[in-house]
Amino acid sequence: MLSAELIAVGTEILLGQIDNTHARYLSDELAKLGVSVYLHTTVGDNIDRLTSIIKQAMLRSRIIILTGGLGPTGDDVTRDAVSDVCKLPLQFSANAYENHVLPYFCQIGKQPSDTNRRQALRVGDAEFLPNPRGTAPGQYLRHDGHHFFLLPGPPLEMRPMFEESVRSRLEILAGSAVIHSRVLHLYGIGESDVETMLQDLYQTQTNPTIAPLATEGEMVLRLTARAAVREEAKALITPLEKELMKRLGSYVYGFDDVSLVQVVFRELLGRSKRVSFAESCTGGLLSSMLVDLPGSSKVFEGAIVSYSDTVKKYALGVSDTLLERHGAVSEEVAKAMAEGVRSALHTDYGVSITGIAGPGGATEDKPVGLVYVAVDGESGVKVMRRVFPGNRTQIRIRSAKLALHLLLQELTR
Amino acid sequence: MLSAELIAVGTEILLGQIDNTHARYLSDELAKLGVSVYLHTTVGDNIDRLTSIIKQAMLRSRIIILTGGLGPTGDDVTRDAVSDVCKLPLQFSANAYENHVLPYFCQIGKQPSDTNRRQALRVGDAEFLPNPRGTAPGQYLRHDGHHFFLLPGPPLEMRPMFEESVRSRLEILAGSAVIHSRVLHLYGIGESDVETMLQDLYQTQTNPTIAPLATEGEMVLRLTARAAVREEAKALITPLEKELMKRLGSYVYGFDDVSLVQVVFRELLGRSKRVSFAESCTGGLLSSMLVDLPGSSKVFEGAIVSYSDTVKKYALGVSDTLLERHGAVSEEVAKAMAEGVRSALHTDYGVSITGIAGPGGATEDKPVGLVYVAVDGESGVKVMRRVFPGNRTQIRIRSAKLALHLLLQELTR
Repeated sequence: MLSAELIAVGTEILLGQIDNTHARYLSDELAKLGVSVYLHTTVGDNIDRLTSIIKQAMLRSRIIILTGGLGPTGDDVTRDAVSDVCKLPLQFSANAYENHVLPYFCQIGKQPSDTNRRQALRVGDAEFLPNPRGTAPGQYLRHDGHHFFLLPGPPLEMRPMFEESVRSRLEILAGSAVIHSRVLHLYGIGESDVETMLQDLYQTQTNPTIAPLATEGEMVLRLTARAAVREEAKALITPLEKELMKRLGSYVYGFDDVSLVQVVFRELLGRSKRVSFAESCTGGLLSSMLVDLPGSSKVFEGAIVSYSDTVKKYALGVSDTLLERHGAVSEEVAKAMAEGVRSALHTDYGVSITGIAGPGGATEDKPVGLVYVAVDGESGVKVMRRVFPGNRTQIRIRSAKLALHLLLQELTR
Repeated sequence: MLSAELIAVGTEILLGQIDNTHARYLSDELAKLGVSVYLHTTVGDNIDRLTSIIKQAMLRSRIIILTGGLGPTGDDVTRDAVSDVCKLPLQFSANAYENHVLPYFCQIGKQPSDTNRRQALRVGDAEFLPNPRGTAPGQYLRHDGHHFFLLPGPPLEMRPMFEESVRSRLEILAGSAVIHSRVLHLYGIGESDVETMLQDLYQTQTNPTIAPLATEGEMVLRLTARAAVREEAKALITPLEKELMKRLGSYVYGFDDVSLVQVVFRELLGRSKRVSFAESCTGGLLSSMLVDLPGSSKVFEGAIVSYSDTVKKYALGVSDTLLERHGAVSEEVAKAMAEGVRSALHTDYGVSITGIAGPGGATEDKPVGLVYVAVDGESGVKVMRRVFPGNRTQIRIRSAKLALHLLLQELTR
């Protein structure tokens, strides 16, 4: 199997100032291509250390992807290090300077400095990889059985370059074997319960494999098959997916690249229904999740963030009696909030959230993490209660997802 | 200078399923202690590869911090690898089993399985590091001039263990030299302008150093000094900080571990003022940022997320005439929204945001990224206009920060 290593270059990563976000992105892309990632390394802007790391990587892996260190200054040593290791001189390419460095400066209306000429230094006979989003073109070098990709550090430059110029080259290198993945998204069941229900499959499945992953309040199962052609890989997955749906189907809300809020958005859109939210402890988080999707105005009317009781009363019409008798965090108030926002904003559905996100605010019978969500629609009002673990941010995220889950149930019942 | 390496163990990181979030956290902590981080490596759950990586690390660094691979299963190979490399046998510690493994199971009301006994296997005479949050105790081993820290993979277990059991040991190892940092937070100026204004200082400063870092719509300058004692390091920073404040003070909104929303929260709290928001394109994001802070109920009344024009009219009282004549994304409507929410929710300040987050919605004279924010308070209503670059999410984050900035100006003028 083809193996690869990732080397991130940048002292700012070793100082803890920024995350190396490339590692996950590139590993995920390589996994999809069936390329096995052997190691991730992060090294500072230091040519001796980088040279030594590249030499070690060449002993282990055929593909070496370097990110960062392609800028114009003397700190940017990736080109020099690859040139040293491969004993291939750096040569100024007038062609690359004109076609890859100058156009960006032209676009942003600035003059390049002399140092920018460094960015057109080619390692041996490397191919330049276009970077219309910045000053640093990438480079692709074949040398002595190895394949080097030199990519820029900023994610907004590196990721498009990977998609436009790297992936297709790796597909050719990865050759005949293809990898196909199918992802199942689950809500309402925990990792250990899934493990118990699938124990026999975990132990016997090798192609396809099953990989579980727990995220905030959700679960993902990734089925991955390897075969000579895509259709064959897909056919390997089909029976396993059917078996999983038989066992866990009631928890599965979507497939592949979706999120809970996207599924809810599509269901609303498909039914031409509009929704409004009344948020207390989540404080606008649920609305913000929906508005982050382009086109959300087609289904979303607006929200009342009723953080104080006064707003619950005057903007949502929750009665004093209810608030005094049951408290703001109660089944009764959750229902009244959902009904109130649906009626105030004239939508098909009204969704509410009220809870105690902590760290303060708990009482003897109402712990931190207690949350009620309610959905009011044509068939009346439904409510759910949960006590979530975690810190304030986690409780707020889980509460917003619970509300989406209840809305999805009402939409698809 | 004392040098360290970080080794993250976990095939799931190499598959791109999760980020290695330890790298940044630990690097930042080590930088504060004056320990230089030489390299980050991520390796899979494979004893041969891990053994070889540890051997290489020992050639370079005195301190080696391993995260992950301390679980109970055969996949968890960190203990075995360190034992192999150091040629120190693994020995079952009945004491560690009783004091570090059993109590957690007792706490969660479950029975340990036989495999959990592996977690009490000690490398040579390593000290166990308590982990009250999980089943995997950490280990600290001194061997042959090296210091090994074996820490659990889950961040919610690793970080508290670092704080409780690792930092103090590293402080002793780091010895006399201390590092002191001062962080300046800037809003309203870009990285290249800062660089131009500080060019002379960037070139001459070595102790303290100046490190700029651009984040979404903001800038951070970190000044770092090294000295024998903390007071001396602080004294080195003072004159440089004064000089920076002279040049850039009007852009500086806070120091050290603060965010823009925290500064706004404190200013509201200190003045006993309450605020309400009217959000259009940000869709609840601004509210959610404030509500994420514990205690926000002391200053935050609530918000109207007026995503549709109907809500702008009925919940905020924006007139048909204004909407028709100027459009929803206009100075006039931004002002009316701020006034409307302040009056509807009876707060000291009303803050509004209206804009085009894209990708759709642009017109000939209103591009994607056009945003108006307004603040209505005792001294009337103020409005600001910007055209932000970036995608939908970036434009929404930048818009929320611009609104916070305008509110801060009004609060502190």
